[in-house]
Order: sequence, then C-alpha cells, then structure tokens
Amino acid sequence: MSRWEPNARGRLEQAALALYGERGFEKTTVAEIAARAGLTERTFFRHFADKREVLFWGAGALQELLVGAVASAPDAAAPIEAVVAALETTGAIFEQRRELARQRQSIIAANTELQERELIKLATLASALAGALRRRGVGEPDARLAAEAGIAVFRVAFDRWIADANGQDFPQFVREALDRLRAVTGGAWPPVGVASPTAEPAAVTTAVRAG
Amino acid sequence: MSRWEPNARGRLEQAALALYGERGFEKTTVAEIAARAGLTERTFFRHFADKREVLFWGAGALQELLVGAVASAPDAAAPIEAVVAALETTGAIFEQRRELARQRQSIIAANTELQERELIKLATLASALAGALRRRGVGEPDARLAAEAGIAVFRVAFDRWIADANGQDFPQFVREALDRLRAVTGGAWPPVGVASPTAEPAAVTTAVRAG
Repeated sequence: MSRWEPNARGRLEQAALALYGERGFEKTTVAEIAARAGLTERTFFRHFADKREVLFWGAGALQELLVGAVASAPDAAAPIEAVVAALETTGAIFEQRRELARQRQSIIAANTELQERELIKLATLASALAGALRRRGVGEPDARLAAEAGIAVFRVAFDRWIADANGQDFPQFVREALDRLRAVTGGAWPPVGVASPTAEPAAVTTAVRAG
Repeated sequence: MSRWEPNARGRLEQAALALYGERGFEKTTVAEIAARAGLTERTFFRHFADKREVLFWGAGALQELLVGAVASAPDAAAPIEAVVAALETTGAIFEQRRELARQRQSIIAANTELQERELIKLATLASALAGALRRRGVGEPDARLAAEAGIAVFRVAFDRWIADANGQDFPQFVREALDRLRAVTGGAWPPVGVASPTAEPAAVTTAVRAG
C-alpha cells in the first residue's frame, strides 16, 4: 500500500489540488505546486509526468485493486455481484481520501479536457473489469454489460458519497446504487411492493411460496 | 428526415469512409475525399467542418430522435423500457446504413483519438437520455442509472448488429442485450432455468405457477 502513503507525493498532490481549486487547473504551474509543497520542480517530476497526472495517478492502482477483487469473488457470485464486491473493497482507501476526492471532482467538473480524460479512464476500467469477468468464465456480451453496469453504479455511488455530509460510507452508497439499478432495469415501474421482479433471489423465492 | 438524404453529403460520406478504410483516417485529406466524390473541397466544407465530422455528424440527429422517443414512451414504461423503446425506433434508419456503420466502426476502432471522441459522444447521449427521463418524472440516481444502462445495451446491440451476417435486425439485438443486462445484474448466477429471477414479470409469474 506504499503508493497511498503521504510524503513527497502526498504533499505535492495536496498542494496541486488546492491550487487547481483556487486558480483553475489551466492557470496553475508546476513551479507553483512545488513551491506550495515546499519541494522542487525536480521532485515534482520524479513523481508525476505532468500537471494532469496528479489527478489521474491513482487510476492504475484502482484498476489493479478492482481486477484482483473481481478475480477473488466467490464462484457463485453473479457478475454484477463480483463487480460490486470489488467496488466495496475500495471503501477503506476512499474513506481516507474523501476530502481529496471531493476537491478532485470539482476540479474535473470545471474543465472539459479533464472530464474527457476521466471518461476515458472509466472506459479503460470497464474494459479491465470485463476482462476479469471473462477470466471467471462469464461470456460475452454478459461480461461487458456487467462491467458497464458496475461502472454506472460506481459513478453514481462515488458522486453521492462525495456530496454526502452525514458520513455514510462508500460501500453503502454502492449497495444503494445497485438496488436502484435493479429497480430501473426491471420490467415493472414503479417497482411494486418490496419484492420487485429484479430483487434478490430470496425475494423471488418468497413470491413463489406466496403464490 | 432531410438530414439522412444521400446527395452531396451522402456522396462525401461514402467517399470519406472508403478512403479512411483504405489509407487510414490520419492519412486521408479533404482534397482526396472531394475528388473521390466528384465534388469540390468547397462543397465538402459546406457540409462538414472537418474530416472528423464526417464520422460524427449524425450524433445530434440520433440524440434528438432518442430524446423524443423517450418523451413519448407510455407513462407506465419502466425507465429502461422507455430508453430501449427509443433505441428500437432507430432500427429503420440503422438498417439503411448497416454497411456505412460497419465501415465507420472499423475506422474508429483503428484510431485512439476517434475512440475517445466516440466515448464522449456516448456520454453526451447518456446525459441527454437521463434528462429526458427526469422530464418523465424519474428521479435521481434512477434517471442516470437507466440512461447509462441503456447506453451499455445500445453499444452491445450495435456491435453485434454490425458483426451479424444473418440480417437480424437492430431492435432484436437491443432486446437481447436488455435480457442479458437483466440476467447479469440479477442476484442469481448462473440464472436458473428459463425463467431467470431477473426476467420480465410474466416469466416470474410462470415460475410461480410452475412452483
């Protein structure tokens, strides 16, 4: 977990996010970031290729973590459950970074080029998750659909977690978003009663017994 | 529907797609496209801002069509059903353009910058669909999740339709992709028997009667 440790990298990241927020991403220079962090430009470039990488360096680690977690989900887990379980494992890391994540998100929302980069990052992540599902024996188009649905759940959960003032944790937002995904992709609308047709098997079993 | 009419625009589009396929997108010039179409560069620029727009000019019309169709879906339609019904309405237009769509897709697959543009186009489409769902009274995060799930269905259906040699029509691929989405986002895996827990309410009813 050394990549998540705050030291030179962490100080540079905090300085960069603060400056991007104050002056805008475009107007901030690497020299200013280094100065704010009390470090040199040379140190900056030992950690990041450029200004933009400060916002995206975690993508590779996140992807590795999620792909590994999908691989180790129980065999019987439905594809979306394997993806969602993987998303839940990121909770502990995210919890430490909520304020940074919040800053990052508002910087990205203010800049079209960064939004595009974020989209590409998420598409890459979806492809990696689909690959991990295929290695579990999930065929196509199932792997791709489950991965894309998982990313939709992730984005919704992440935005709500960032906006949340009550300290609800990330995995809980993930579960809620999955429940909503199941509700909106089901055939009945609005979903009737507690046991909607897209609910967990247990709910369907109950419906079967009741019928 | 005048935007779909083949004339100067159609001839330029066909010439451009043929050349992008033969020489690659990067290496093709506007002068070559105009010459192949038997038209002038000036005519090209009356129809398209640049080379790239030949591949993306239809995005606005597609978005309008889908947003309009979501708006006019039956009130009782589940969010995903409204989106899927909208996707099905595009079938007739797509059917006329299958060969062009196939060419376009392989050109995009060969070029990272075009892939990124395509991702951005689809993200814009997802936002527009979420907006159309909100105007139907669907709240958040439901509108966004249904729109994202709909785009995942669209992409899978589109790729399969393009790859298909048996002439199965686009709406049928859309329905199949929706069925798979429901299967992979359900709780049971693999889905048991013919009536999976995430199937349509009718199928669940059948299972109830059988049980």
